[in-house]
Amino acid sequence: MKPIPGGNICTPKGFLASALHCGLKKSGKPDICLLVSERPATAAAAFTTNKFRAAPVELSERTLAKSLPMRAIVVNSGNANACTGKKGMENARAMAAVTAKALGIKPGEVLVCSTGRIGVQLPMDKLEKGITAAATSLGADKGSDAAGAIMTTDLAKKECAVSFRTSGGPTVSIGAMTKGSGMISPKMRTAHPHATMLSFITCDADVEEQFLRKTFDSCVRRSFNMITVDNDMSTNDSVIMLANGAAGNRRITAKSPDAAKFADALLAVMEKMARSIVLDGEGATKFVTVLVEKARSDSDAELCARAICNSMLCKTAWFGGDPNWGRILAAAGYSGAKFSPDKTDLFYNRSAVIRKGRPVETPEEKLAREVSGKELLVRISLGAGKKSCTMWTSDLSYDYVKINADYRT
Amino acid sequence: MKPIPGGNICTPKGFLASALHCGLKKSGKPDICLLVSERPATAAAAFTTNKFRAAPVELSERTLAKSLPMRAIVVNSGNANACTGKKGMENARAMAAVTAKALGIKPGEVLVCSTGRIGVQLPMDKLEKGITAAATSLGADKGSDAAGAIMTTDLAKKECAVSFRTSGGPTVSIGAMTKGSGMISPKMRTAHPHATMLSFITCDADVEEQFLRKTFDSCVRRSFNMITVDNDMSTNDSVIMLANGAAGNRRITAKSPDAAKFADALLAVMEKMARSIVLDGEGATKFVTVLVEKARSDSDAELCARAICNSMLCKTAWFGGDPNWGRILAAAGYSGAKFSPDKTDLFYNRSAVIRKGRPVETPEEKLAREVSGKELLVRISLGAGKKSCTMWTSDLSYDYVKINADYRT
Repeated sequence: MKPIPGGNICTPKGFLASALHCGLKKSGKPDICLLVSERPATAAAAFTTNKFRAAPVELSERTLAKSLPMRAIVVNSGNANACTGKKGMENARAMAAVTAKALGIKPGEVLVCSTGRIGVQLPMDKLEKGITAAATSLGADKGSDAAGAIMTTDLAKKECAVSFRTSGGPTVSIGAMTKGSGMISPKMRTAHPHATMLSFITCDADVEEQFLRKTFDSCVRRSFNMITVDNDMSTNDSVIMLANGAAGNRRITAKSPDAAKFADALLAVMEKMARSIVLDGEGATKFVTVLVEKARSDSDAELCARAICNSMLCKTAWFGGDPNWGRILAAAGYSGAKFSPDKTDLFYNRSAVIRKGRPVETPEEKLAREVSGKELLVRISLGAGKKSCTMWTSDLSYDYVKINADYRT
Repeated sequence: MKPIPGGNICTPKGFLASALHCGLKKSGKPDICLLVSERPATAAAAFTTNKFRAAPVELSERTLAKSLPMRAIVVNSGNANACTGKKGMENARAMAAVTAKALGIKPGEVLVCSTGRIGVQLPMDKLEKGITAAATSLGADKGSDAAGAIMTTDLAKKECAVSFRTSGGPTVSIGAMTKGSGMISPKMRTAHPHATMLSFITCDADVEEQFLRKTFDSCVRRSFNMITVDNDMSTNDSVIMLANGAAGNRRITAKSPDAAKFADALLAVMEKMARSIVLDGEGATKFVTVLVEKARSDSDAELCARAICNSMLCKTAWFGGDPNWGRILAAAGYSGAKFSPDKTDLFYNRSAVIRKGRPVETPEEKLAREVSGKELLVRISLGAGKKSCTMWTSDLSYDYVKINADYRT
């Protein structure tokens, strides 16, 4: 597998995109994106389980339940179409219908996503005109424009692509684009992950549906599931993947020689996208990796990692470059994970902070330097077993408060 | 029951206090407090269940396990004596021993509390001299000084007293003092509540021990258990109550005519103290009451209230005076509580925001005015049952970030 510099959602063969402004965003920036596969594509997806899930989430999940090939994804930013009742569902259906009509395909081949303000009906006039126009300007060179059109509070586009050579000969590639910055706390406990972002993944390999879905689920669990910015789960989270077979490879199944390569490449893409959300987390000045080791169980490892990642006191200390390890131990201590304090070790990057529950003699200035970098690894070993968990998070800054206290005004 | 204006921890008969600076706080403010009952007192207490609980928490819990009468509580601020290993436990024992010696009582009659920096050994020289000096300056007029000596990041003293007339004639009173501002997230699931503050309660009534402990537990659950500032549980949380019988009342038991009066008075005192912590929450500009109604179960009601109270997005919206109800519904939606979105109602104070899951036509400006006040009631009805839950919390401001990013420097 190798990364493709400048790669995007249209790097895999047979995918076209289009992006334009139809009037949802006051800024005048692009707010509609159309992603089209030239041939029917096998799909896999994961959606939020928030009880207040948005109309497009309900609709897309129902559409995918039929296990039919998909052709297009239509996305609008600037309006979440959430908490919009029956009218909201009618509008989501209309988005699919208008897209299908413009492309000459069936509404059941179109998936719909929305992101932005909650509780406001979509201005369907503008949106329908926008979708129709977008359908006339599709291009394989517009993948990066598409990544811009799905942004809300994001500061940076999030996109990438990788490729690998299949055993039969053809090289296949996977591309992705993602949006997400706040309301980030994917917590996947079921078949449907909670993820607070939109992420779209394209692949030109021919992949058997059941294997695709299983691999997709496993990768989501280890990537998007392991990030948190603010512990708030959204109503619109969606990760959708289309694999269209345009590369002409021998079909990848669970037993094929390319299965592991495919899974590795997909995980690499998802990890990169998940990390890019944290890097662009609202107000983030730091990227923090929390690695919990020697936990009694997977769930204990995750409980501990999640408590540290979501602790407002840990996050503000990281923002301040304060090596205040008491807050990290306190968070581990209330996480619910089972362990003995006197077997606990803690490291900042490679510097030991705590051994067997007690501070070691690393100078405070050295610890402060570790915590002051742009990236920080917090590694805690519970001495209670053999399980581990890695999560990624950001710090809590003045700007997080500013962005979210002023979002509407 | 009636409140006593200017009442404090020494309002109940037979309690003396003392406060002085021994050198733990750089500010030169009082950092030792001694609270003494002139006669043996029945005790009840609740402690943090954080795995990294501090040495004094361990010691006091063991002391109380013997169910013997208590005579004194010694408290230091400026140093938490947490994550301090064996030496920390020796120091906690020494605090009890020095206090006992100075007062002419037994170490087993002394409870010990500490609050402040984690992971630093106590300067025992200074502390022992301080305790000995404090023991020579005890007075019934020093209750309010004591409330100052237990403060850390608190901006205001937290104290109160109430009294009620017992059926037998004598009037009894309950006094209290509390500290706490950050690391506030008491979550009581067991006999030992998690509370992130220190709170001391005195009472001059004669109260039967078993009834006292049961009533105490129930009141802690409905007061300290129902506040959160930042969802971070401390290593040192302690709530301790002493009842010394100095009022000369007929002993209060579960069956006595004064049982309900006593329980009401104790709950009123604990609620006032718990609310005072939130009012003084780090960086708080707003006091928010979250009332969840018509939940399917008590635990669903609490899950929903806790998710809303701890949501960084809700808290920053409240700080900004932003009536962004989508964040409140999203938090309810991911809380884990079982309910139907289309049966959900939401109110800001008396203004309807959502009915049956959809926004009502209350003008945005009116909602913004409701959210802009110093106090806000967020009332959400889940339409799923008959249970309810009230929690109290604060908003998330620039100052919260400032206080906690700069705590050490």
